[in-house]
Amino acid sequence: MKFEIIQVGTIFSPYKKKEDCPIQGVAAPEGTGHVEVFPEFEEALKTIETFSHIYLFYIFDQAGEVKLSRQTFLSDDIHGVFASRHPCRPNSIGMSIVKLEKRIKNILHVSQIDVLDRTPLVDIKPYIPRFDFRENAGNGWTQQKKMQQKPPERE
Amino acid sequence: MKFEIIQVGTIFSPYKKKEDCPIQGVAAPEGTGHVEVFPEFEEALKTIETFSHIYLFYIFDQAGEVKLSRQTFLSDDIHGVFASRHPCRPNSIGMSIVKLEKRIKNILHVSQIDVLDRTPLVDIKPYIPRFDFRENAGNGWTQQKKMQQKPPERE
Repeated sequence: MKFEIIQVGTIFSPYKKKEDCPIQGVAAPEGTGHVEVFPEFEEALKTIETFSHIYLFYIFDQAGEVKLSRQTFLSDDIHGVFASRHPCRPNSIGMSIVKLEKRIKNILHVSQIDVLDRTPLVDIKPYIPRFDFRENAGNGWTQQKKMQQKPPERE
Repeated sequence: MKFEIIQVGTIFSPYKKKEDCPIQGVAAPEGTGHVEVFPEFEEALKTIETFSHIYLFYIFDQAGEVKLSRQTFLSDDIHGVFASRHPCRPNSIGMSIVKLEKRIKNILHVSQIDVLDRTPLVDIKPYIPRFDFRENAGNGWTQQKKMQQKPPERE
């Protein structure tokens, strides 16, 4: 079965090229940007300013070839793309947690961003620790991996 | 801009009707189910069994009318759908965090599920506390809301 999804806004960030993006937003708290929700969807933002953090959902529109398993930025080992956050996945849906600094009408000013500039936005959900925090959750294969520079020429 | 996404599997749960689904999985730890990833995508699961929890991404294929703001299951006040987890949103993308109990080939046995039976799966990502936990994040407008039975006739 196939589904059609639409762009509801655009994410603007300091990262103009894929290789500039940090591996995860939490590792780049200084990265600030803004999200322009198209005016026709502004009503959907009502009360979002009560949250400190939000999930952005977007399309990795610059992603390269899809492979079901591959090396990742964090690891030289082969991991399935459902076991990593790799952008090249069967559906190119990305998710980032960002800090919501302020809302001005249909514009959300955010920090801790790790998304490429001008990425198409498809959804926003509030980050709600009382629902989303799982005590004792493990870090899986990433546990021992250090944040590093992205290995060159690795998609 | 529009994007096409494909179904990569199916989520099976004890919840046969929308009104049976818990408001959030964390409130229903006893809910168990399984995720069938289509065999052609099994390779994408490699090493997923190292994680204790995963995000499921799916399509709310039984969602009703989209309204940009409305009452929610938790609140009689009006909230924008981007400020809630309401299923009726411009793109019907749902996200749930579930506990991964075990993997047998292309089948993931999970608990803490809050998804309707036979929901189409579109992506899986690992839940990684070191990337996803935000200390001091607030609960926004949900802070004072108690878990409750879903108000009848509220979509």
